[in-house]
Amino acid sequence: MTITGPVPLALLDDLAHSRTGELLHDALAARWPSDSDELNAIARYALLPAGKFLRPVMTMTAAEAVGGEPSQVLPAALAMEYLHVATLTHDDIIDGDMVRRGRPTVHVAHGLAHAIVAGDHLIFAAFTGLAECREAGLRDPAVVESVAVLAEAGSDLCRGQMLEARLVGDITAEPETYLEMARLKTGALFRAVCQIGALLAGASSEQAAALGRYGSDLGVAFQIRDDLILFADPDDADKPTGSDLANGRPTLPVLVAYQTSDEDTRLAMGAALARRSAEPAEFDEFRALLMATGALQGCSEYATEFGRRALDGLAGLAPSHSVDLLTGIVQWAVTTRP
Amino acid sequence: MTITGPVPLALLDDLAHSRTGELLHDALAARWPSDSDELNAIARYALLPAGKFLRPVMTMTAAEAVGGEPSQVLPAALAMEYLHVATLTHDDIIDGDMVRRGRPTVHVAHGLAHAIVAGDHLIFAAFTGLAECREAGLRDPAVVESVAVLAEAGSDLCRGQMLEARLVGDITAEPETYLEMARLKTGALFRAVCQIGALLAGASSEQAAALGRYGSDLGVAFQIRDDLILFADPDDADKPTGSDLANGRPTLPVLVAYQTSDEDTRLAMGAALARRSAEPAEFDEFRALLMATGALQGCSEYATEFGRRALDGLAGLAPSHSVDLLTGIVQWAVTTRP
Repeated sequence: MTITGPVPLALLDDLAHSRTGELLHDALAARWPSDSDELNAIARYALLPAGKFLRPVMTMTAAEAVGGEPSQVLPAALAMEYLHVATLTHDDIIDGDMVRRGRPTVHVAHGLAHAIVAGDHLIFAAFTGLAECREAGLRDPAVVESVAVLAEAGSDLCRGQMLEARLVGDITAEPETYLEMARLKTGALFRAVCQIGALLAGASSEQAAALGRYGSDLGVAFQIRDDLILFADPDDADKPTGSDLANGRPTLPVLVAYQTSDEDTRLAMGAALARRSAEPAEFDEFRALLMATGALQGCSEYATEFGRRALDGLAGLAPSHSVDLLTGIVQWAVTTRP
Repeated sequence: MTITGPVPLALLDDLAHSRTGELLHDALAARWPSDSDELNAIARYALLPAGKFLRPVMTMTAAEAVGGEPSQVLPAALAMEYLHVATLTHDDIIDGDMVRRGRPTVHVAHGLAHAIVAGDHLIFAAFTGLAECREAGLRDPAVVESVAVLAEAGSDLCRGQMLEARLVGDITAEPETYLEMARLKTGALFRAVCQIGALLAGASSEQAAALGRYGSDLGVAFQIRDDLILFADPDDADKPTGSDLANGRPTLPVLVAYQTSDEDTRLAMGAALARRSAEPAEFDEFRALLMATGALQGCSEYATEFGRRALDGLAGLAPSHSVDLLTGIVQWAVTTRP
């Protein structure tokens, strides 16, 4: 299995609007109605309109890839979205982010107290969702194992969050430390997303763990992709605002560039980062500095390597449309334009 | 079954130092060693030195009361403490409380970001603990049901936290609204604590639910007791500082007093609450106002009523030392000195 071939760059948008995506959207809207109580209303604000729904779609795809019926794992798939959005809600408080998906973040719209509580509620809702799988006729041992997998992933997410906080402003950090952070902060939930889909669909623990490794490595590739997009073509209309530069958050290209640069470039990069400027002109200058170091190419190679590892996790599966889709997601993750 | 008889006022201290209490203490210290990583170290700060350990002791006692072996449910009992401490950690942020158990609260000692993350981690650790019960040989269906019960209790706690926020400063709120808040904020976890102990020990769903009702009503009685202690004898060395007056948090005596007072007293109480003073003299004056209304007596009657309902939940159990203990905890809850 290789990760070359034509890659649909709109894949994630296509997924969100696939039949599975629509099913998830409808279920989400039905479970979080607009006439909810105050707590559910804030959770609904955090959940809807939904993002790309990648995680729940992947839970259902993983279930199908091991021969299960995807709709049976729907409550677990929604649970993955709840946990994802819970961590976004709490992370936005921690990072002081004001906007997400084009709207005020939960703590901006509803205040700090309500944002903390709504995040907690979504964590609990995730476990309620897993327990609900029982009513869908899924086996108790698989549900218990899923609870263990999700809880461990949740704690890993917390570890990733703390490690990221420690990396803020530290341009001298090793790329390996960053990759460990990405494994915890992004890879852990993708691991759970795939492992739980497989477990609940009746896969053996070994097969589910292989899909979990697929998810973990894919998550790291995703994180690297996000970083690379930060430095994408400045003429690209989708270009983000460079807020990671402004808030001192470490990104892999910066760390790789620092490791491979001479003293003068190191000083210039350190100074730019220390200013935490949000000026577009300053960001463009920083980007030019990075491009000259060749770090973007180095980062793409990291992404490709994690993509390759992710595909190893799919090796034991019989060919199917689901496996093609999981493969396509990897291709999507390792293909960026900068 | 009645709730009269000699009541050991030091009961909770005795429980914490009982054989079960010591077992729990040792297990907690072993699972959260001092040489942990940064995240576990903050969780350890929140967990240790432990409080009275009432919730985990009750999980083990509930297991024993239905004929189970208490030590088998130890991981679940610890999980109850994790969830309790997680909510304390997040509540302290929300309420701006600076001191707990004589030490700086987690967010004061470790910062807001780490306190949010450590609270999340403890929630996940609670579900990890439940899933661990599998390894102790407990039945999967009971574990899945316990996950559902704990997750629902967690969401109820969130609802209670939001309802409390809505009650802040609202002296005109009905006592019934307050009791609903207490049921959600305090009763929900005690419900889970008892129901899960029983479920995991092999009780039927009905028997476990009865113990859950015991826990819920006991929790409300506890909350009322806490409120009454606020207005305890001012010469009592254990008297709290009246911080609920200072931060405008509603307490049942205040709401009952308001409902039963004439217009002049209502105005005086409203003015005292609006000042949010932390002055001892002002608190003593407020206390005198309350005493004169007879509200403390009215509150004691509420506590007695919830205590009586709690005992109903024990009605189906065979007499045993454990049932005596659960009865004693109710007696303790409804016996206050003010």
